[in-house]
Amino acid sequence: MKAIRLHAYHERPRVEDVADPAVHGPYDVLVDIGGAGLCRTDLHIVEGQWADRSKVPLPYTLGHENAGWIRQVGSAVEHLQPGDTVILHPLVTCGFCRACRAGDDVHCEASVFPGINADGGMAQVLRTHARSVVKLPDQTQPADVAALADAGLTAYHAVKKAVPLLYPGTTCVVMGAGGLGHIGIQCLRALTATRIVVLDPSEEALALTRQWGADETVRVDGKHVERVLELTEGKGAQVVLDFVGERGAERDSWAVTRSAGSHFVIGYGGTIEVPTIDVISTERNVIGNLVGSYNELAELMALTANGQVRLHTCTYPLDAVNDALDDLVAGRLRGRGILVPDRLG
Amino acid sequence: MKAIRLHAYHERPRVEDVADPAVHGPYDVLVDIGGAGLCRTDLHIVEGQWADRSKVPLPYTLGHENAGWIRQVGSAVEHLQPGDTVILHPLVTCGFCRACRAGDDVHCEASVFPGINADGGMAQVLRTHARSVVKLPDQTQPADVAALADAGLTAYHAVKKAVPLLYPGTTCVVMGAGGLGHIGIQCLRALTATRIVVLDPSEEALALTRQWGADETVRVDGKHVERVLELTEGKGAQVVLDFVGERGAERDSWAVTRSAGSHFVIGYGGTIEVPTIDVISTERNVIGNLVGSYNELAELMALTANGQVRLHTCTYPLDAVNDALDDLVAGRLRGRGILVPDRLG
Amino acid sequence: MKAIRLHAYHERPRVEDVADPAVHGPYDVLVDIGGAGLCRTDLHIVEGQWADRSKVPLPYTLGHENAGWIRQVGSAVEHLQPGDTVILHPLVTCGFCRACRAGDDVHCEASVFPGINADGGMAQVLRTHARSVVKLPDQTQPADVAALADAGLTAYHAVKKAVPLLYPGTTCVVMGAGGLGHIGIQCLRALTATRIVVLDPSEEALALTRQWGADETVRVDGKHVERVLELTEGKGAQVVLDFVGERGAERDSWAVTRSAGSHFVIGYGGTIEVPTIDVISTERNVIGNLVGSYNELAELMALTANGQVRLHTCTYPLDAVNDALDDLVAGRLRGRGILVPDRLG
Amino acid sequence: MKAIRLHAYHERPRVEDVADPAVHGPYDVLVDIGGAGLCRTDLHIVEGQWADRSKVPLPYTLGHENAGWIRQVGSAVEHLQPGDTVILHPLVTCGFCRACRAGDDVHCEASVFPGINADGGMAQVLRTHARSVVKLPDQTQPADVAALADAGLTAYHAVKKAVPLLYPGTTCVVMGAGGLGHIGIQCLRALTATRIVVLDPSEEALALTRQWGADETVRVDGKHVERVLELTEGKGAQVVLDFVGERGAERDSWAVTRSAGSHFVIGYGGTIEVPTIDVISTERNVIGNLVGSYNELAELMALTANGQVRLHTCTYPLDAVNDALDDLVAGRLRGRGILVPDRLG
Repeated sequence: MKAIRLHAYHERPRVEDVADPAVHGPYDVLVDIGGAGLCRTDLHIVEGQWADRSKVPLPYTLGHENAGWIRQVGSAVEHLQPGDTVILHPLVTCGFCRACRAGDDVHCEASVFPGINADGGMAQVLRTHARSVVKLPDQTQPADVAALADAGLTAYHAVKKAVPLLYPGTTCVVMGAGGLGHIGIQCLRALTATRIVVLDPSEEALALTRQWGADETVRVDGKHVERVLELTEGKGAQVVLDFVGERGAERDSWAVTRSAGSHFVIGYGGTIEVPTIDVISTERNVIGNLVGSYNELAELMALTANGQVRLHTCTYPLDAVNDALDDLVAGRLRGRGILVPDRLG
Repeated sequence: MKAIRLHAYHERPRVEDVADPAVHGPYDVLVDIGGAGLCRTDLHIVEGQWADRSKVPLPYTLGHENAGWIRQVGSAVEHLQPGDTVILHPLVTCGFCRACRAGDDVHCEASVFPGINADGGMAQVLRTHARSVVKLPDQTQPADVAALADAGLTAYHAVKKAVPLLYPGTTCVVMGAGGLGHIGIQCLRALTATRIVVLDPSEEALALTRQWGADETVRVDGKHVERVLELTEGKGAQVVLDFVGERGAERDSWAVTRSAGSHFVIGYGGTIEVPTIDVISTERNVIGNLVGSYNELAELMALTANGQVRLHTCTYPLDAVNDALDDLVAGRLRGRGILVPDRLG
Repeated sequence: MKAIRLHAYHERPRVEDVADPAVHGPYDVLVDIGGAGLCRTDLHIVEGQWADRSKVPLPYTLGHENAGWIRQVGSAVEHLQPGDTVILHPLVTCGFCRACRAGDDVHCEASVFPGINADGGMAQVLRTHARSVVKLPDQTQPADVAALADAGLTAYHAVKKAVPLLYPGTTCVVMGAGGLGHIGIQCLRALTATRIVVLDPSEEALALTRQWGADETVRVDGKHVERVLELTEGKGAQVVLDFVGERGAERDSWAVTRSAGSHFVIGYGGTIEVPTIDVISTERNVIGNLVGSYNELAELMALTANGQVRLHTCTYPLDAVNDALDDLVAGRLRGRGILVPDRLG
Repeated sequence: MKAIRLHAYHERPRVEDVADPAVHGPYDVLVDIGGAGLCRTDLHIVEGQWADRSKVPLPYTLGHENAGWIRQVGSAVEHLQPGDTVILHPLVTCGFCRACRAGDDVHCEASVFPGINADGGMAQVLRTHARSVVKLPDQTQPADVAALADAGLTAYHAVKKAVPLLYPGTTCVVMGAGGLGHIGIQCLRALTATRIVVLDPSEEALALTRQWGADETVRVDGKHVERVLELTEGKGAQVVLDFVGERGAERDSWAVTRSAGSHFVIGYGGTIEVPTIDVISTERNVIGNLVGSYNELAELMALTANGQVRLHTCTYPLDAVNDALDDLVAGRLRGRGILVPDRLG
């Protein structure tokens, strides 16, 4: 089959023929990929930023946001059938540790992350494990939802944790109107009646957020912290969802978090730096956020099924991966880039 | 009556005669002070560290940890009687804002803090508001519990927030075996079956914690982070209660917080400084903590009533305040210093 | 002023002149009534069904759903001004018991219920307490929101308790498409993405629920339990909001509650009768629900302010109270009946 | 191997030789039984009371409370080794449904219950699934903990759900001082500072509860409801753990549940019968309870490991099963009966 393989850091990934994956373990599942999301993390991988963390031996196949149709299942799999339309939780988890047994898949003590530290889904077929497979309605197009498997799930997870804090009358600041913010705003709108205030440097990006459910938009122009405080009687927001986490957003997010409020860190790159006297005298929190659980991915799929969360996507054939990467780097990509392989015979 | 008055920063407070306070408002309550706790904050006030924050006009009466007996109540007070034994929540709150109406007294939008920004309880009589008064069993000695009104309540509040995270089989690190740690360990023991690991530079302080309920003690000697990791299979603790918050404790606390765990900041002085990549990749949280609510003070009093929380105290007559302060500065004070005024006729 | 007074059970209430109420206590508040909701409870009061419970001495003034403008405030009230537009929490609470201090006003140990066991708001002016007053935006019309003070608040309270159970992909059954169901469905739609299935005997009532946010409607015709089970893969709903509570609804509600699910009892009249073996083998719950808290009323007002909850109302002059009651009895009243007094000079 | 087999309802189970079980599936685990708990459910099975529910084909092997040492593991099992000391969660669950993925094993959509609807652990060897296996410290004696696998886990589960309601100053009524109450009281003592009030008809049983942590005991003698109300200022308890659920306990439990409180149904046999007006006007809840989750069993094992929960047991050789049943029926069995097979060579 064809796959997008990375042979060396700082080199373009190559489209090449590799052996078709086969079922080895009793719970292995082979998936014909219908859509593989492309994201900035793929750029960072190529640039070698993940080399030390992932320790993946090269060459390997990229692709950590995957959806498609089941091709074959292992001998012990009873609840899935070839032909099922599916999206894949990004992690392959053990199922036996305390975290897995608590529904907290992400903190599994022995997980594997296809596309990061194992062969991923930018290929005609991906081998995964039955525990990662979320069944979708037959009519779902994998290419429409693939990018929700990781980026979307991260946004949903943060929103879901924030929901109990966001009763009617509260304000939620969304820092960043990019890919994750896009999903985050839609999820907030579906699950709360909070007032959503979105911050971004781009007027164009801000304008789009109105149709996703934003109530107020504030351009990041140096006076934005002041503007958010004006919008909140000088107090700030009960929750700040910081989808940026760098270039000052991590500092501004804290500054617009009100007393007893929470700064949810989702984006990254910068450093949180707050005096403990500020932490305790206002009783504010800094909340870490990773990707969501398997059940949360199923919940997000329920929101897409009823039309409450929609992705803008731009599809490319599998072997146009480098065009897609070029478009992403050049800022020409509107919405999420999705690679769509030809289906293996 | 006699009161301990601060006339100028960097000068010793004076014992002097002032007019007896009187009931003005319908919910005012006069309390014959039976015990007024002395704490480091009082030293910091004298040193002027709170001048800018409290903006209190000098001279004023110190004392923010108060208990005693009701002397007189305002015309509208029906549920309290002269003679009732009481402890006072440290804040006088409005009762009408959202926070007050949610039981979250501490975030009242219009609170007053006697002893900090208004006349406090180092005096024979204190005027407070009915909303601050927690009734105690008749036989309770105010001097035995006064120090729980602020320091103890802060420790209890943090522990109560942590309890849902501390199921059997978890580890809770207590950073600091001083006054707050002392209460915190007892509260943890009363409310959880978690393994309690206490860190402190003093072997003597650590030794004492065993009788309060500590399971393990670790001397802060430069290898303490490593030692905690050894005790937790290299993972760290689900909760770290950082009663120090400075001199490296704020950094070490984060280092021994495990993935998906929470670093509770209670002590202060230092600065939290953590890369966002660490926050998100481990999904750890930094949790702010202030003093507890009125209802939490009542709960803490229930723990003292049944013997599960005990304070070591050392009493002084009111006019020995400067001896007490000297003992505190010199490290001669074992347990909490409590000023006990003569009861006004 | 004019007031609607009940002189004897089973007799029509009378419109009569009574002395204008005056401020007595420091936190008393006089409100010029702009709208007083009429509900079935008023009928039940007239019929004497509440005589033993309320023990109110006759004659007294009816009206327990009140909104208007502040006329005068007591000497200690600082956060409210004459002229403020307000809605009133149905209970006057003590502010000092544990429940009040926990934000759980409804379980106050010493509450008074104007319109039930004290003079109510079917009058030109009502005397209440500052603790009951929720401030509204100036432009709000009291007559538009008055009926939310009790009936609406009850529906909101139940929905808010249910929200954590209603993640995307769940089903919530709403039993009864009447006044409370009307509000409940709108609140569910504003706060969750759950699938809302409404049951009612009236096709006309069911048809209306679609515009409020219902996803499915099922006519109560003897096959409705079966129909709900079909809609839920034979399992039933995670939450059933039973706004009826009698005439079999209490039994059917339990029957369509799935394993580990919760039957919220809101309406009343019937008897819950379930074998303990069914309770434990399915781990289902029966959840009691009363009217909401003060803060919840403020939250509901936020939902009305942004248009997410709307009431259909039909206004009557104060002295047309018996016409309104006749219309209510005869089923001629569409939406909630609201009495609108002339404003006292 | 030897096993206790039921050949016909209403007949004594027989000790007989059966084929040794073998590993079939990749996650099968064979366990050398070190202790199999005997409980009233076993009597009920023999009497045919479970025939319609379990639909198990006869003959089959009894025993649903099992602990021992791993004998052999399936090809895919990596985290368990022959020789490991283990206790078994009573259910064998699918691991793929929403409930399993949420850590709520008990509501698995496709579970099997060894000893109830499949061959159980009253045998030398039991075949189970890796998902059911909780690893214990090497030195644990399986016979000491086996009875916690089901009865104990049920009590722990109910207590854990109740803990958030039981802050210091509350009262928890424990209805029934038998086997489950015994464990429940110890769990309450380990996890809360609530006042524990135990009710039972037997003075002897009540006397024992003091050493497990009961604060007050009340004999069930017709005046017990009145007595509990006296102990609680006429209000009742915040939580009632009803370990009886029949013979009036289900009615009395509701009667001693205070407003806004919860009646936890754990025992069964009787019928809950409460007017909806009582449910709503007091906002009380009826909470269903089944056996706990896998993680809860691990937590309960942590409580036994540190000595906070202890069982009184009485051991019998496997082939003395009918002596044990006779002792149970005759009330001669003190503590839990545990069958201890000879270890298979």
